[in-house]
Amino acid sequence: MKFARLGESGSEIPVVIDADRTFDLRPLTSDVNGDFLAADPVARTQTALDAGELPELAGAADLRIGAPIARPSAVICIGQNYAAHARESGAEPPTVPIMFLKTPNTVVGPDDAVTIPRGSEKTDWEVELGIVIGTRAAYLDSVEEADAHIAGYVVANDVSERAFQMEVSGGQWSKGKIAFGFNPTGPWLVTPDEVDVDNLNLRSFVNGEARQDSNTNDMIFDVRTIVHHLSQYVTLEPGDLILTGTPQGVAFGGKFPYLQAGDVVDIEIEGLGSQRQQFVAWEAAK
Amino acid sequence: MKFARLGESGSEIPVVIDADRTFDLRPLTSDVNGDFLAADPVARTQTALDAGELPELAGAADLRIGAPIARPSAVICIGQNYAAHARESGAEPPTVPIMFLKTPNTVVGPDDAVTIPRGSEKTDWEVELGIVIGTRAAYLDSVEEADAHIAGYVVANDVSERAFQMEVSGGQWSKGKIAFGFNPTGPWLVTPDEVDVDNLNLRSFVNGEARQDSNTNDMIFDVRTIVHHLSQYVTLEPGDLILTGTPQGVAFGGKFPYLQAGDVVDIEIEGLGSQRQQFVAWEAAK
Repeated sequence: MKFARLGESGSEIPVVIDADRTFDLRPLTSDVNGDFLAADPVARTQTALDAGELPELAGAADLRIGAPIARPSAVICIGQNYAAHARESGAEPPTVPIMFLKTPNTVVGPDDAVTIPRGSEKTDWEVELGIVIGTRAAYLDSVEEADAHIAGYVVANDVSERAFQMEVSGGQWSKGKIAFGFNPTGPWLVTPDEVDVDNLNLRSFVNGEARQDSNTNDMIFDVRTIVHHLSQYVTLEPGDLILTGTPQGVAFGGKFPYLQAGDVVDIEIEGLGSQRQQFVAWEAAK
Repeated sequence: MKFARLGESGSEIPVVIDADRTFDLRPLTSDVNGDFLAADPVARTQTALDAGELPELAGAADLRIGAPIARPSAVICIGQNYAAHARESGAEPPTVPIMFLKTPNTVVGPDDAVTIPRGSEKTDWEVELGIVIGTRAAYLDSVEEADAHIAGYVVANDVSERAFQMEVSGGQWSKGKIAFGFNPTGPWLVTPDEVDVDNLNLRSFVNGEARQDSNTNDMIFDVRTIVHHLSQYVTLEPGDLILTGTPQGVAFGGKFPYLQAGDVVDIEIEGLGSQRQQFVAWEAAK
């Protein structure tokens, strides 16, 4: 099942996409938020679809695509989770998951324009598999328990400013991760039954040229290990978003130039959809 | 003016405290949240008080004290912002503000019991001055502009688990900062006119023994500098909480033992009130 949110920023309509038709979820929920995701959303949506209780949304194809989840309570990121990316960043592959946070107001629609921050010379892309939490998770006793707490998966671009992250940060990465709009998310929240999350190709392109091209089977820590590990340190809330790290092929690795105003970035993960963002100058976005 | 939130967790009543009397704010707002703080809260509250529109809250003294702000969209922390604490942590004083994030679900009432995380042997206290954002702030052009975006100040305990923060983190501090309840906040949100924020004594005690004893005039980066600096990297939202760093005298410095179940921590800042937390074992809190 695929959930999405369509319409202008701040007033998105929650929908479910079923065999290329788009149905309005508002008879069931006001939003694709934690309350909805924690309360058996797939079964409830299927029942409502089968009963004909969800009207088809007219004109859906003309609406802006929002992030497929309401603003989460937390965005947790895993760093250096692909061995080849760790190497291109000059680091050894980690022996425990490295985590940092983005602010929830970075989460925007998958195709929204992204503003290059004022003073930025090192804005970079990062295709990432995102995990959306379904039910509250704390102190999970086993890796296997993680599945029961996952609502689904999304495409995300963990946009990063490398000078802010590495050069004026004292070593704490978040400063380069939290500019407004630095987390295009979606187009869909795809439920776990629809994908083999441990074997998904993920790719990025800048102005049509290939950049990243890898597979989630190259992750050092897999999805279940990440959720289990994080739950030892933080209470994961329904609707929270976890970004699972990015593979090699970003500008920070030294092979490609950083983004400039006018560049177009495409991001895609097999089965989860694709994004396209135009990057714009700060002055133009004021 | 002092705002607070009283009652059980999740259903706190917003109040204003005026000359030791407690008035119910619900005729004005459902909560002390971003919407309220962004819309001239002091003038509106004073007008309502003067008009007798806010009823006195009966039995206020018997209610639990909640955090004085609704769950923020972000909790941003400044690290090593007191030179003597940087030294006790083995680091040189920073030349730019070092920032990291806590998850918003760490924010709890000032006197709520704090659970020592499962497996923790290095749970530590940190008294900190907290800034609450009033109006959205992005790309402030000067340090002076910061004042217009600050709703007020709070006491906070930036509770930290040092092994999680430093030993199993790959160097990113957040892993040791985000256990549930690791951010007791309050008792009050005090508006800027009531305190000289650049000259406030702040202290902590464990089981009645003095630990930290410093003054905000020892901060390397002052309140306005922090807000101006952060606004270059993140859009600060109404109701967001910024913790401004802690002075020397924490267990991590090596002079004092880490916290154990049964320990009682007192935290206080001149003019902003005091907190008292009992620390409890994970097993007892399950």
